[in-house]
Amino acid sequence: MNKKYILRIQSPDQKGLIYKITSLLFELEFNIEKNNEYVNNEDNIFFFRAEFSGTTSIAGLKEKLCAILPENTFISLEESRKKNVVIFCTKEYHCLGDLLLKHESKEINCHIQAIISNHENLRKLSERFEIPFYYISSTRLLRSEHEEKILNLLQSINEEYTIDYIILAKYMRILSAHFVKHYWHKIINIHHSLLPAFIGANPYKQAYHKGAKIIGATAHFVTENLDEGPIITQNIIEVNHTYSIHDMQKAGRDIEKNVLAKAIELVLNDRVFIHNNKTVIF
Amino acid sequence: MNKKYILRIQSPDQKGLIYKITSLLFELEFNIEKNNEYVNNEDNIFFFRAEFSGTTSIAGLKEKLCAILPENTFISLEESRKKNVVIFCTKEYHCLGDLLLKHESKEINCHIQAIISNHENLRKLSERFEIPFYYISSTRLLRSEHEEKILNLLQSINEEYTIDYIILAKYMRILSAHFVKHYWHKIINIHHSLLPAFIGANPYKQAYHKGAKIIGATAHFVTENLDEGPIITQNIIEVNHTYSIHDMQKAGRDIEKNVLAKAIELVLNDRVFIHNNKTVIF
Amino acid sequence: MNKKYILRIQSPDQKGLIYKITSLLFELEFNIEKNNEYVNNEDNIFFFRAEFSGTTSIAGLKEKLCAILPENTFISLEESRKKNVVIFCTKEYHCLGDLLLKHESKEINCHIQAIISNHENLRKLSERFEIPFYYISSTRLLRSEHEEKILNLLQSINEEYTIDYIILAKYMRILSAHFVKHYWHKIINIHHSLLPAFIGANPYKQAYHKGAKIIGATAHFVTENLDEGPIITQNIIEVNHTYSIHDMQKAGRDIEKNVLAKAIELVLNDRVFIHNNKTVIF
Amino acid sequence: MNKKYILRIQSPDQKGLIYKITSLLFELEFNIEKNNEYVNNEDNIFFFRAEFSGTTSIAGLKEKLCAILPENTFISLEESRKKNVVIFCTKEYHCLGDLLLKHESKEINCHIQAIISNHENLRKLSERFEIPFYYISSTRLLRSEHEEKILNLLQSINEEYTIDYIILAKYMRILSAHFVKHYWHKIINIHHSLLPAFIGANPYKQAYHKGAKIIGATAHFVTENLDEGPIITQNIIEVNHTYSIHDMQKAGRDIEKNVLAKAIELVLNDRVFIHNNKTVIF
Repeated sequence: MNKKYILRIQSPDQKGLIYKITSLLFELEFNIEKNNEYVNNEDNIFFFRAEFSGTTSIAGLKEKLCAILPENTFISLEESRKKNVVIFCTKEYHCLGDLLLKHESKEINCHIQAIISNHENLRKLSERFEIPFYYISSTRLLRSEHEEKILNLLQSINEEYTIDYIILAKYMRILSAHFVKHYWHKIINIHHSLLPAFIGANPYKQAYHKGAKIIGATAHFVTENLDEGPIITQNIIEVNHTYSIHDMQKAGRDIEKNVLAKAIELVLNDRVFIHNNKTVIF
Repeated sequence: MNKKYILRIQSPDQKGLIYKITSLLFELEFNIEKNNEYVNNEDNIFFFRAEFSGTTSIAGLKEKLCAILPENTFISLEESRKKNVVIFCTKEYHCLGDLLLKHESKEINCHIQAIISNHENLRKLSERFEIPFYYISSTRLLRSEHEEKILNLLQSINEEYTIDYIILAKYMRILSAHFVKHYWHKIINIHHSLLPAFIGANPYKQAYHKGAKIIGATAHFVTENLDEGPIITQNIIEVNHTYSIHDMQKAGRDIEKNVLAKAIELVLNDRVFIHNNKTVIF
Repeated sequence: MNKKYILRIQSPDQKGLIYKITSLLFELEFNIEKNNEYVNNEDNIFFFRAEFSGTTSIAGLKEKLCAILPENTFISLEESRKKNVVIFCTKEYHCLGDLLLKHESKEINCHIQAIISNHENLRKLSERFEIPFYYISSTRLLRSEHEEKILNLLQSINEEYTIDYIILAKYMRILSAHFVKHYWHKIINIHHSLLPAFIGANPYKQAYHKGAKIIGATAHFVTENLDEGPIITQNIIEVNHTYSIHDMQKAGRDIEKNVLAKAIELVLNDRVFIHNNKTVIF
Repeated sequence: MNKKYILRIQSPDQKGLIYKITSLLFELEFNIEKNNEYVNNEDNIFFFRAEFSGTTSIAGLKEKLCAILPENTFISLEESRKKNVVIFCTKEYHCLGDLLLKHESKEINCHIQAIISNHENLRKLSERFEIPFYYISSTRLLRSEHEEKILNLLQSINEEYTIDYIILAKYMRILSAHFVKHYWHKIINIHHSLLPAFIGANPYKQAYHKGAKIIGATAHFVTENLDEGPIITQNIIEVNHTYSIHDMQKAGRDIEKNVLAKAIELVLNDRVFIHNNKTVIF
């Protein structure tokens, strides 16, 4: 039976890498349907992604690749599959709603296993789409206590489904370095500014007071430094002097949800590599 | 003879201002061809711009407007005319070249009276278009000494032509608060980032190291705070992981020159108001 | 009690119109909060829109305006209110889903009274948001018969609620001139191309075969000529040779829903005038 | 001595092509600095471009490639070099001026050998940059007679320099199929609309009368069908009801020149493939 696989390689660059990889796949009678490569000449890193298919088993292929590739090479090889995600949110409809719609209509290639929120506001929306909604209040809790509760919930979900990614769909709490480490480079956030401009709270207010003529949104991986993780996608809209802060927020919502959805699609299709706090996207 | 005038008003807001202004112009048999108004509700400021024409003299009109408008009102009233500008530049072709072309083909409505540079690089280009080029080296000079030389030159130009605006077409020196005060809100700069992101030196380098997926340019009035004056226009381009710093610079040039030219066009047509370090643009 | 009103005027241009309108509102002690005007010099048409508020009654105001304005003037004056809309759709989720979300979260200022479709596909989605869904199959019906059924349904809805606008959220049937006349300039469609390019069926296929590097979407009023009614909003995305027709469709969905939502917001806020098959938008 | 080469391949697709090509280059000790490939699955065509360098001679390499690649393969292999171009123009400054500036500042990688025009208007601008300007009037000539004169001039230029590309920088005459055949897929035009919308004369006028909210520009190869050759680059700007036809023309100029310059940069760097009247761009 013909199966489809995704191979991702990130390694020190060397002459002949493409030749070595493609010759191995050729010998095993796999058919490369798409492939992309990029060399970061500054740090001498080779990035490679291929979608290939075939009837041969891939058992042992990763080891064969290891043998011909340089030391310190990252290789990811797996059958193309739907990823499992959990969404965190707080009160705002637009990003969660857009993901639920795209999930329902199969526009995004994942299973939304659960929605977790520190407020009750979005319970009804989640229930409309029959996705389990967990309210974990942070009231009177230390950040560490609140996160512990969430981590426990995630672990219980994880027992049934491997959580591939956590999506912060306007989740208005800062995650601790401790939490982030548990899901390293697996948490994706949408920030309502064109990072690195307007880090932190109230970016539209900041943009308003600076008289910005362009505002934007940024989807990025979450690291221990607030709003400074690797940027995946960004987009902008034009504003002018007639926009109040409220108008900017309203206008920004469509961009926020589009930028987040685009980033998630890239990540779910294994198109995003991370190097040196930056992304390489095929 | 029918003449065309531009009236600009910036005043505390009051009920009936448009009625009062338009009734005065109506009585004097002027014809309003275009008008725009905007009220900043936060600070209660009324902005008004009209292009009007007529055969009546405007002598005394400003006083009549003063009489019916609130105290502390700014009124600018003059016959539509070509403005005089001086361009400062350093080594880069693209912004100066674009302005020279637009000047030659009458795309921008001004006289370029002189080009002043701290380097010789752009002399030939200036001479190709027969615009006086003044080289004022900053070598071995204090900032104040260098600026004094420039101010003297400007004064001698000013004796013949009122300098309406100074355009910094990639002028790579910081102007002192002293200099800026001489031409307050008359100096327009192009900065090669989407301000307030990447203030100061090497914005493309900063964008590169942050892994920005969007870069931009900002035209703004110059104030005593570096790159923090009122923003006039901004625009962006998308970049990706394949862009080196050099590629970003190259790609950014077309945006820089377009953004600067657009800002200058707005300013030369008296379409830009400044309030609270922000612009209102009609 | 302070009430908010919206006044819209479209009339032959004359000197002093703004003065006359604003003086009348001033005398009646109304406060103009926002106003916009535009003169189409080609056809000599004056467009005016004001949001004003006050405690005086507006009874008789329309007649007073009529008396001071030129003949053949269109005047619309009413208290600011939520409009009633009916959505037509076929099989695609994205536009309907986006409107349902924006309706639920009060992002768009209207009541969705009903959803009408020629297929059952979107019943579940409509029911998730508790909006009445009417399936009116067109199978084995003449266009006129199918439309008659819809018109009857609309009439029964209309008895309770005045239908202000019909939104075609990817409704894949062409409405007859007869139908359109019943809701003249009250039907808004989203077309998945940058009209007037790619009128009619399969615009993405057309764009693909032409090798377009940019594709777009257009929201417009429906007239008796297919895809040729007044354009309200348009937007675009960039594509390249790697996009299949399917990829273009997928990428286009986010633009389609954003463009439609933007157009509807403008229309619901009475910001759109129509003249000569073109729109004037404040 | 290390030299830099560009290899371009367009061939029927087959399993293992990348492997075969890269293994050949690897054996000959060339270093691939960049490579891109794309497979058009609809027509089963493989596109490949590589920048590679090395000290080995490339003599015989093309033949070796031929031997391992499918029949009916197009191969282009040459040392990286500056191309020779001739510009045709009529009366408008902006596109010609932008190219002259970019040529002078080495932003575009070519030699402008000559400028040919059917009017005298741009002679002075050309002479400012010391590029030979040839005025070939079309007055009282048949199209064929006028083109014959141009072809003769091109032939005399060609004797000294191979003309790689002809750039139509707002050349306002239609070239005959006869002329186009002489420079097949070597003539690049800028059309002031988002093709295929608004083919032919006065696209801004057409856009104005249709009430378009977005206008654009398209750079494309010229074929025997007016404005229907393969599209290279496109870009857009937003307009609104306040834009006259003249305003659209003015606003469009910056987009036209940017789009043309971008297309020329891609073509000069051998990044553009043509298949089935569409482009593949790496």
